[in-house]
Amino acid sequence: MNDTVLTPTKILDTAEDVLRRFGPTKTTVVDVARALGVSHGSVYRHFASKAELRNAVAERWLLRVSDPLEEFATAKGPALDRLHRWFHALMTSKRQKVGADPEMFATYSALASESGDVIAEHIAHLQGQIARILQDGIDAREIAPMDAGATAQAIFRATSFYHHPMHATAWSDPGIDRSFEALWRLLVKGLMPR
Amino acid sequence: MNDTVLTPTKILDTAEDVLRRFGPTKTTVVDVARALGVSHGSVYRHFASKAELRNAVAERWLLRVSDPLEEFATAKGPALDRLHRWFHALMTSKRQKVGADPEMFATYSALASESGDVIAEHIAHLQGQIARILQDGIDAREIAPMDAGATAQAIFRATSFYHHPMHATAWSDPGIDRSFEALWRLLVKGLMPR
Repeated sequence: MNDTVLTPTKILDTAEDVLRRFGPTKTTVVDVARALGVSHGSVYRHFASKAELRNAVAERWLLRVSDPLEEFATAKGPALDRLHRWFHALMTSKRQKVGADPEMFATYSALASESGDVIAEHIAHLQGQIARILQDGIDAREIAPMDAGATAQAIFRATSFYHHPMHATAWSDPGIDRSFEALWRLLVKGLMPR
Repeated sequence: MNDTVLTPTKILDTAEDVLRRFGPTKTTVVDVARALGVSHGSVYRHFASKAELRNAVAERWLLRVSDPLEEFATAKGPALDRLHRWFHALMTSKRQKVGADPEMFATYSALASESGDVIAEHIAHLQGQIARILQDGIDAREIAPMDAGATAQAIFRATSFYHHPMHATAWSDPGIDRSFEALWRLLVKGLMPR
């Protein structure tokens, strides 16, 4: 490949392919450069270190989770319905990813868990979406007055079992949806005005 | 040691010492027998395989978590107070264990996670304690009528972030108690009769 057409997106696409073949521990910047047909110096012009490249791969993967959820955060309609659909979309997305390619899911989860700042930003992003829905509900008196940000964190953590990659082995339980709905009913009652 | 005084308790005590020194992957039944001064055959008379010994070590560790919680399940007084104290005791116990000896906590967590049945029984035991408290509250009309068993599972899972070993790194966050209380308020409102 000619260096002049080397873009961050092309590097990330190739890095994903290489990660898929070699795994996260064995993949090096040189492997990625070789797969692109460029020198490793060319890759380093876009990503200053292996850590930076790994973080960028993890970040892009996490954006594929959070971006499609944005529509529920900005939609019209009752806040609790939007929040329910937001959680279902999040859980469906995570389960599809682990179902489609469990190894790659594990690889990305490992990558992401090593990229502390990237993960923190992702979680802040998701909790921000929840907080916006909650605030709409509070403004519409559909939800009791409360601190939307703190409550967003509380219910995001309360649902960890259903969306945190560390709990992925539990998601194949056929009772998982019923279990989430049992929690959802409690949370809805907790959120509604008296 | 004379074989005639070799008890399961002595074997488990020694197995814990050996695990502490060698770690879970390197520890063998022969190491445990050597530390006891008996033949490995003597150990096998009590535990038929290395897996059985590992499971017994994990089980005893988990009983040290669940046994002290029993008093909250059987105490008198308002159910929601008892449940709050039960959760605080669980979280305090987990945090003390990880704080006192993080490596041993990781070792036991790894052992336990490989002992699927032992873990399942432990979780059923803890959820059973919660269900008893909930049922007392339902009977006393302090808690709305609901399926105590399903609700126990829902709130045990909802609090995973605060007690599941996989989330242990989050427990040193100084805001962790405030975060739990935010969730607790939602859950209490969800549990109370309208």
